Amino acid sequence: MRDAVSTSPPRPGSAAPPDPALAEAAAAALERLRTAAPLVQCITNTVVANVTANVLLAVGASPAMTDIQGEGGVFAELADGLLVNTGTPSAEQRGAAYEAVGARSRAGRPWVLDPVAVGALPVRTALARDLLAFRPAVVRGNASEVIGLAGGAGGRGTDATDDVDAARGAAAELAARAGCAVAVSGPVDLVRSAGGTVVRVPHGSALLTRITGGGCALGALTAAFTAVAEDPAAAAVAATTVYTLAAEDAAGAAGGPGSFAVALLDRLHGITPEQVAARARLVREEDDR
Amino acid sequence: MRDAVSTSPPRPGSAAPPDPALAEAAAAALERLRTAAPLVQCITNTVVANVTANVLLAVGASPAMTDIQGEGGVFAELADGLLVNTGTPSAEQRGAAYEAVGARSRAGRPWVLDPVAVGALPVRTALARDLLAFRPAVVRGNASEVIGLAGGAGGRGTDATDDVDAARGAAAELAARAGCAVAVSGPVDLVRSAGGTVVRVPHGSALLTRITGGGCALGALTAAFTAVAEDPAAAAVAATTVYTLAAEDAAGAAGGPGSFAVALLDRLHGITPEQVAARARLVREEDDR
Amino acid sequence: MRDAVSTSPPRPGSAAPPDPALAEAAAAALERLRTAAPLVQCITNTVVANVTANVLLAVGASPAMTDIQGEGGVFAELADGLLVNTGTPSAEQRGAAYEAVGARSRAGRPWVLDPVAVGALPVRTALARDLLAFRPAVVRGNASEVIGLAGGAGGRGTDATDDVDAARGAAAELAARAGCAVAVSGPVDLVRSAGGTVVRVPHGSALLTRITGGGCALGALTAAFTAVAEDPAAAAVAATTVYTLAAEDAAGAAGGPGSFAVALLDRLHGITPEQVAARARLVREEDDR
Repeated sequence: MRDAVSTSPPRPGSAAPPDPALAEAAAAALERLRTAAPLVQCITNTVVANVTANVLLAVGASPAMTDIQGEGGVFAELADGLLVNTGTPSAEQRGAAYEAVGARSRAGRPWVLDPVAVGALPVRTALARDLLAFRPAVVRGNASEVIGLAGGAGGRGTDATDDVDAARGAAAELAARAGCAVAVSGPVDLVRSAGGTVVRVPHGSALLTRITGGGCALGALTAAFTAVAEDPAAAAVAATTVYTLAAEDAAGAAGGPGSFAVALLDRLHGITPEQVAARARLVREEDDR
Repeated sequence: MRDAVSTSPPRPGSAAPPDPALAEAAAAALERLRTAAPLVQCITNTVVANVTANVLLAVGASPAMTDIQGEGGVFAELADGLLVNTGTPSAEQRGAAYEAVGARSRAGRPWVLDPVAVGALPVRTALARDLLAFRPAVVRGNASEVIGLAGGAGGRGTDATDDVDAARGAAAELAARAGCAVAVSGPVDLVRSAGGTVVRVPHGSALLTRITGGGCALGALTAAFTAVAEDPAAAAVAATTVYTLAAEDAAGAAGGPGSFAVALLDRLHGITPEQVAARARLVREEDDR
Repeated sequence: MRDAVSTSPPRPGSAAPPDPALAEAAAAALERLRTAAPLVQCITNTVVANVTANVLLAVGASPAMTDIQGEGGVFAELADGLLVNTGTPSAEQRGAAYEAVGARSRAGRPWVLDPVAVGALPVRTALARDLLAFRPAVVRGNASEVIGLAGGAGGRGTDATDDVDAARGAAAELAARAGCAVAVSGPVDLVRSAGGTVVRVPHGSALLTRITGGGCALGALTAAFTAVAEDPAAAAVAATTVYTLAAEDAAGAAGGPGSFAVALLDRLHGITPEQVAARARLVREEDDR
């Protein structure tokens, strides 16, 4: 279940040079994550639950897929981070999701919404739009999903049929409505803060679109980083940077999507804050205000 | 959750030589699949959802595990292919399955039924036999499951306790009842068209029986090929051929079932139509009419 | 979802030397398992279902994740072993679990309870304590889960926050209440028989705590061994020994958690009874009576 995060340079139009301070902030967040080992509750689809948990474990966080009614809210009070992913939103999971985001909202604590295939399908579209009222800290999806969440038509399934920049208007609309940062996956990932600052993350590999969970696991990693980053947008930038840098390394070592998935976990485990600081070429762009 | 697909030559009794035209048809179907990237809806068991999605992504299709009530039918209208697998048929999935096959049936579009462990267990046996009324294009299972679906006793769990050829009578019966092709997994796979033509696919590896989803993922691949092959039996032959050839390569590179599963995804990604045309030794046999 | 099983020598306090007879019993149980290929029903969490099935297949058992209402009890009558794991206990799974343990209990046949995150969360805690009345043959968990099941507060999520030896009192209490053996995962695993004999298994790798299902799969393997071992405690010792020895080999070949998980399956497939007999350093300790 997933969307595009692949290698390619920033568009010619984005003239700004990489900002080393952004790379250092991502590196520092990774260092704090390794120390804190945040407990991350994931209410996510059954297809990617395994790889999501493994991504969190590899990077140094602690996953818990507590997604049943009667436990969703109790655990959300304990957890350091929360992801709600709408990939296979059964009635049981929907109930758990409402419990969990209610608990986070009451406590004023961050949570991440990954609106998988929203726009194309009725149950999850109604669910995800409804959950916006509980004010996620970050919405993370591909361009079609972000557009679909904001009220557009969305793509088909989990494949983005829209370009990352096509989602900028929808991201601004979601920020106005829910006060959230928005992370849009694509060849170059885009993170827009609630206030309108835009950061581009030009790392990754096309192989992330050839394994299931390539995007969903990034949503969980974003939830992990909300426990240690300075603000929601910084969490999304740090998660995207660490993940896509590890993906670049994994792609270099891979003979196809099977060995890529294995190497991705190895690299998420092995990548150091120093490597993130040295290699990330994050660009702060014109604001969307 | 899986069934036997392993290496061994055609039985001495099957005297016919390989037919290169069958191999070329499978190769051409693979080429079309890579171009079309069909969107394949899978209502499948939670155990193999991940590997199923990865197999589809590796070969070049686009998976979507849309398996909840209220979305099963909507998505089946959009999807290029549909698999219903009875491995863990919860109430929620059963509802989604009825919605989905109803939509395909009304539209006259193909879908694939994988009757996992049917015959041995009551809920799925009733479900799978009921779904036959919606006329699947292909039924894909091991011999015991095919026999169980047709009304026999079935095996225990997902292990075939019957030989592939023992299922030929059941396959003919299912064809008469539902107008479907039937693909039977085993040491040499057998595909019977609705009309009674039998093709044998003598490829694969015994390691496919040592990973979960070894058979289930083939059901999903068959659904993907129904979107591009000339007819349902050709879809089953193409899927089985591509899958078992990739498995042969993977077995050669593997140190056990863990590395086999990884190499299988790499090879499904890497295998070319030219390799399929050159290597497949498909035999058209006497008809079951 | 998982807990600690890692390499480290027996504590200085445990003066007893390894007992070769224990190692030989584990080796003999593995040999019988490979011949019998027991059918193991797993009612387990959706996160680890895939790796659990693959672990069972790799070692030579036959998994079946039959976890829906209406089939849980029917299959439990057929199966050679049964695991109930409380990782994601949806209403559907809870119903299936009651059916299954009821069937095993009526037939006087063994089953294994893995009380994932019990103590910390209300639904699973009530479920697991309730299931004790059906007298599991083995309870397998980390120290916090065993303490939580016996009535203590438990840890947070699946991370053990207690030392293995801190669970000895709780293990004795569970034995008194349910007549079960108790296996406690940790740096050195501890298995306590219903009668109070304690065996320590000083093998494993810290990487088992960096992959999801590292502990859950061991619960399923324990259920497989109940079909061939002399008694429940011997099943737990054999499962833990085979699993942690394979993990040691896998860790030696791994570049991180991704390649570790792959190598673990390869080694579970490849490890021989002779290797188990030669390498296992199992220590029988003072009794807890």
